[in-house]
Parts: sequence; C-alpha cells; structure tokens
Amino acid sequence: MSSKIAIIGGTGNLGSALAWRLARAGRAVIIGSRTAESASAKAAELGHGLTGMANPDAADVADIIIITVPFSAQEATLAEIKPHVAGKIVVDTTVPLVPPKVMRVQLPAEGSAAAKAAGLLGDDVRLVSGFHNVAAHKLAQDVDVACDILVFGDEKAARAEVVALADAAGLRGIHAGPLVNSAAAEAMTSLLIFINKNYQVDGAGIAVTGDLKPLG
Amino acid sequence: MSSKIAIIGGTGNLGSALAWRLARAGRAVIIGSRTAESASAKAAELGHGLTGMANPDAADVADIIIITVPFSAQEATLAEIKPHVAGKIVVDTTVPLVPPKVMRVQLPAEGSAAAKAAGLLGDDVRLVSGFHNVAAHKLAQDVDVACDILVFGDEKAARAEVVALADAAGLRGIHAGPLVNSAAAEAMTSLLIFINKNYQVDGAGIAVTGDLKPLG
Repeated sequence: MSSKIAIIGGTGNLGSALAWRLARAGRAVIIGSRTAESASAKAAELGHGLTGMANPDAADVADIIIITVPFSAQEATLAEIKPHVAGKIVVDTTVPLVPPKVMRVQLPAEGSAAAKAAGLLGDDVRLVSGFHNVAAHKLAQDVDVACDILVFGDEKAARAEVVALADAAGLRGIHAGPLVNSAAAEAMTSLLIFINKNYQVDGAGIAVTGDLKPLG
Repeated sequence: MSSKIAIIGGTGNLGSALAWRLARAGRAVIIGSRTAESASAKAAELGHGLTGMANPDAADVADIIIITVPFSAQEATLAEIKPHVAGKIVVDTTVPLVPPKVMRVQLPAEGSAAAKAAGLLGDDVRLVSGFHNVAAHKLAQDVDVACDILVFGDEKAARAEVVALADAAGLRGIHAGPLVNSAAAEAMTSLLIFINKNYQVDGAGIAVTGDLKPLG
C-alpha cells in the first residue's frame, strides 16, 4: 500500500503546488491547514482526489508529513503536529528567511532550520529536509521545472522516500547527505532571491552538473 | 592597464588551474608559493607567461590577490599577506572542509570562511569570495567546465572584477550577494563531495537555472 502524505501548511504556495503535483502523480495526499474548512476548500480547488483536514488530523492519518510553513511558523507548527508523527517520516522544507533581508543568508543559531526541527521533534521521527530551492509559483504550473531537489537526512531509507517524492513531482531528487548539510540548500535560497532580483529571473533554481550514475 | 593578479598558494590544484586559465586568457598572473623557487618552477611548467614569487612578494606587486589554500592554512596565509594588500581586491576561495568528514557541512563559528577572512584582514581590503564549487582537476583541463562561479562581496564593483575573472577563465561568474552569503557556496562543496562519492560523479558542479538577463 502506498504511503499517505500530509502537507502541513498545504494552502500556502509551496504546499499547494507540491500537493497538486503529487496528487496528479497518483499519490494519496491530504492538505493540512489551520482549519479543516480552508484545507478542504483548497483541496477541492486543486482536484485530483485531494482532501483536506486540520493540520494535526492530517499529520495523524498520514505516513509521510511534509511541513511547508514560513520560518516564523515552524516552531509552533512542529509543536502542534509532534504528538502525531512518532516513527514517521517528517519532511521539513523550512527556509530560514528573516524578512526584510531575505536576500541575505541568516542561518539560525542551530545551524539550519532542519537542525532546529530535529531539536523540536526529538529522536523518534525520521526527519528529512528538502524542497528548499524550488520556486513555488513554477511548481504550481504544468511546466518542466529546472531545479534539482537536494534531500538531506541521517537515515538513507527515509531520504530515499523523499527523493522518490521529488521524482514523482516531476523534479530530480538527489541524496545530498546528512541533515546537517541542509544548511547549504537553505542558505542557497537567499542567493536565488538575490539572483532573481539582480538578473531579473523568473524563479532561478539550481542544478547539480555532472554525470550522476544510479545509486548502488 | 590591466590588473596584475597574484595566486597565493598557486602551486596547489585550484591555484595552478586558475593561474593557467587566466594566463592563457591573456591576463598577467603571478604564482605565489612558500618559496620563490617552487613558485617559479610551477610557473615554468604551466607556461603562458606565468611567473613565480614567494607569497608576500606576489601579493605586494599584484592588484588582485586570489587566496587558494586549504582551510587549515587560511589564517597563517592571510596573516602573511596582510601587510601587502591594503586597498586591493582580495579573493578568498577557502572552503571550510574539516577532514576527515569532508562530506559534512562544518561551517566555522564566524559563519563562513569568508567571514573569517574579513575578520583577519580588516576593513581596508576589498574582500570578495568565490570559486568554491569548481572541481580543480576539471579546471586544469582544456575542457568546458559545467560549474557556475558564485561571487560574494559587500562591494559591487569589486565583485564585478571577480565575475569578470571567472568569465575570463571560461566559466560563468554570477553576482550572488554580500559576503555573508558565501556560507551557501562554501557549504555546498561538502554536498558536491557527497554526491561525487554516492553517484560516482567525476567532479559534480552547480549551475543556476533560469534566464539570467544582463546586469543593469
């Protein structure tokens, strides 16, 4: 049986785009939001069999929980879902942007948003991070998106599930090492915002160059 | 008159590859090393009008000083050249790899090797960082290298000179924001080493995707 996926904060730009792409690829996806009503409304809008629930309920019924909230909401959101995610794969997509200087790398004291999530969730979740660099508005369109998804986690099998989700979403997922390495991709987002502004790009992304052989 | 370039630590893999590419492009380049003898020997080996000097002498006669030493040698090297670089552009290429765990991001307490360089050199240099992600052994070959050069610095004009050097070396230089953003590219190198190993790549690099318009 295929894993059930919950997108926490799934009415936001990244969350709804990801939910739409995964549902379109045939995955069972639940949109989570503050209220079941707003979640269900977004699910109905996006179609493809999506359903909606309040965040904790979505986390409770799902096997893989993807967190797509702004940095300022990360802590409260993780506290809210923590009772429902023991033993499960949690995918943190948080980018530690600190407005108004979002073009400036400002990593948190923990080293990365992923490390912060690890501290908040404790050891009984299978924590992975990813989807930091992809432009949500491009992901929401039915187009090829030129951005690799760097996936981080201390457990290879959990990472592999998220790499597969990225692939299902029409992107290229890449194993990029332990959770601590998440700092690189999180920091990269500020560079991409800087590049978008200075080179007038509509959603720059990153690609790993070179001939990547299949994983052994 | 064109700027004179010194490559400090220019007998190493990255330094000699960069010296060779810039000299081949017609730039005046001096290789710096611990001893004038080893610098001159490497210069003679590489040809293209390269010359060699001891590191402090090379820094003294040059207008742009590129530091290409391992992280463990960064502090001592910057102390050695500091008396010779006031008012000049200094390009730090240091990646804070901490052996043996070089596939693991381990940014220094200062936030980045570039921030550490800034602290060591003080305010009277025009500090830029770049060339963190390119595989030296590929740069040393007469081939197209698929790796963008992300260039960081708080002064746009200084950054622009280094973007132009990257272009002269046959790469694509990209303005990527203030010096603090260097953390992203420095951290990325550990990911690329991880990817090289796990996907059996001969020198993975990174590319910024999207349609970059010329800078205004």
